[in-house]
Amino acid sequence: MIVDGKHFRSLWWNETRGVLEIIDQTWLPYDFRTIQVVTLQDFADAIREMKVRGAPLIGATAAYGVARAMESDPSDANLERTWNFLEATRPTAINLKWALNRCRDALLPLPESDRAASALRLAHLIADEDVQINKKVGQHGLEIILKIAQRKNNGDPVRILTHCNAGWLATVDWGTATSPIYQAHDMGLNLHVWVDETRPRNQGAITAWELGKHGVPHTYIVDNAGGHLMQHGMVDLVITGTDRTTRCGDVCNKIGTYLKALAAKDNDVPFYVALPSSTIDWTVRNGLMEIPIEERSDAEISNIQGISAAGKVDAVTVTPEGTPVGNPAFDVTPSRLVTGLITERGLCDASETGLLSLFPEFSDTVG
Amino acid sequence: MIVDGKHFRSLWWNETRGVLEIIDQTWLPYDFRTIQVVTLQDFADAIREMKVRGAPLIGATAAYGVARAMESDPSDANLERTWNFLEATRPTAINLKWALNRCRDALLPLPESDRAASALRLAHLIADEDVQINKKVGQHGLEIILKIAQRKNNGDPVRILTHCNAGWLATVDWGTATSPIYQAHDMGLNLHVWVDETRPRNQGAITAWELGKHGVPHTYIVDNAGGHLMQHGMVDLVITGTDRTTRCGDVCNKIGTYLKALAAKDNDVPFYVALPSSTIDWTVRNGLMEIPIEERSDAEISNIQGISAAGKVDAVTVTPEGTPVGNPAFDVTPSRLVTGLITERGLCDASETGLLSLFPEFSDTVG
Repeated sequence: MIVDGKHFRSLWWNETRGVLEIIDQTWLPYDFRTIQVVTLQDFADAIREMKVRGAPLIGATAAYGVARAMESDPSDANLERTWNFLEATRPTAINLKWALNRCRDALLPLPESDRAASALRLAHLIADEDVQINKKVGQHGLEIILKIAQRKNNGDPVRILTHCNAGWLATVDWGTATSPIYQAHDMGLNLHVWVDETRPRNQGAITAWELGKHGVPHTYIVDNAGGHLMQHGMVDLVITGTDRTTRCGDVCNKIGTYLKALAAKDNDVPFYVALPSSTIDWTVRNGLMEIPIEERSDAEISNIQGISAAGKVDAVTVTPEGTPVGNPAFDVTPSRLVTGLITERGLCDASETGLLSLFPEFSDTVG
Repeated sequence: MIVDGKHFRSLWWNETRGVLEIIDQTWLPYDFRTIQVVTLQDFADAIREMKVRGAPLIGATAAYGVARAMESDPSDANLERTWNFLEATRPTAINLKWALNRCRDALLPLPESDRAASALRLAHLIADEDVQINKKVGQHGLEIILKIAQRKNNGDPVRILTHCNAGWLATVDWGTATSPIYQAHDMGLNLHVWVDETRPRNQGAITAWELGKHGVPHTYIVDNAGGHLMQHGMVDLVITGTDRTTRCGDVCNKIGTYLKALAAKDNDVPFYVALPSSTIDWTVRNGLMEIPIEERSDAEISNIQGISAAGKVDAVTVTPEGTPVGNPAFDVTPSRLVTGLITERGLCDASETGLLSLFPEFSDTVG
């Protein structure tokens, strides 16, 4: 999408130098820095340290990581090592595994001499597909927004709440939850987005940055506020992304998503989840029982990054010295709380029947 | 309660200097500073700027403010002026109005010459009563904790989640939500407290500070995490405080309380609210419709205070420059989500019948 008048993707291949370039998102929203990802260790660090974040972007980055590894050693052993090395960087994101499996399956049958070039072509393809898929997700999500706008019938803004950053920065472009928002905005619809701060990593600040750069009206709120806004009829629609969706429509997303889904249900606010089908884990049925939840570092909670009065990126410690901290990074929203799923093939119920109606080719996958 | 081995209340009268001393809570949990509150403007500032915070403590502080005003001008006109001046500092806290009304009702019938001394005696009484009331709230809340501990029957900790700071620092001593916790801890019961960070003002850091100083085991979590913990059976009980309770048992408390109540309901976790009866507004029935919600400053959300790497209290800005911010400070938890109320007269249902069974003297108040 647009930054300072120029179109950016969140990663791109630098043909001249033969390296991947990314926006180092740990500096956002305070500084817009692009960096080169060179060694396989750089790729692992970029994913683990969340320089790239968001399920689809992690997947695309990992594919470029495989391409880098194949350049130096295209052996089966190295392909396996690379798969394991990159897969271990983030245990929850299903797209990571999906992208790595896709690379392995495509490369293993090839002679070693073809693997480096093929791996790079495949990484380009995965990145381009992501853009196309997210665009389609947005087109289908747009239908929901347009229906609400028609009901309003008076030009009042459609008020959408979102949690975390399922924006273009979490994908290669468009975003998932934001794709319908950008498309509605670009066609001139009156919108207003409530942006959840999304502690502990405050990804809401990134969403606010994206929306602000693209010109979409929004208000930044703390994670605690959404229920109150819904109680008072100030939210027409919730759209979030997902890091992993089960075969039965449970949604594993950034911690706190479940609380917003409960509030939406309690106030009859439609709660939609936007996803590329690569986030669907067809082998998992019950998200609550089966999905391991990543416990991240204490420092993410104890220390908050921002801009100091002197204008430099700095962090302050907010907890009393020695305070024990717990940091589960995701939660699972049961399908019963999800009004519908927005996929690249259309809308469906958050259920096995709903998902299989759009993706019948997975009906035989054992879940 | 205990700080560095010494017993403190959150305010006390300095007889020698004839001034009120308070813990300036805006410095907590980074620095323990006590300050003198001298002029009426100081009292208003202390309440408005949340140097004192929490409904019961605000009430006691206001009573001392009336005493200060009566010292210089004990006229009816000044009593009225003082009432209005102090009442305007925080629109939501019902105890503020309650304490001011109590002072006015007690002082108006007195000759002007008696008012200063009487007002001071009354402020002392209100402070001492608060301590006694909170102690009783704790004794009744303790029954709930003991029952859960007995069911466990294996010495495993009773795991209690709390939101905001309804601790001793929000009262004159003991706290409301924390009073049962301190009493259970002091009798040797095995407890563990999940402390919600409580954005935007991070009062959870103050709760963590209190609990830490008193030796109660606890873990600091983001506001987003509680639902996930409840889904996984890691919370036995929620206890929060309340800034205002309606005649019918709706609870107006720090923003985000409603989301925790929804999660508790969804996971069959008991959700209790601890309150001195002074927080009950007998004239209000429907909290959602009738209680005005204070919208506080953008800076509370945009800027986060903590300790810098250099060890000084500092703030960083977390939102992109120019980001619009919304900051509703409270929400209303409907009585249907509240398992029970813990008052100084015992436990009751969160309903008009429940409350009137304990406080029959208010049955004729028009609500």
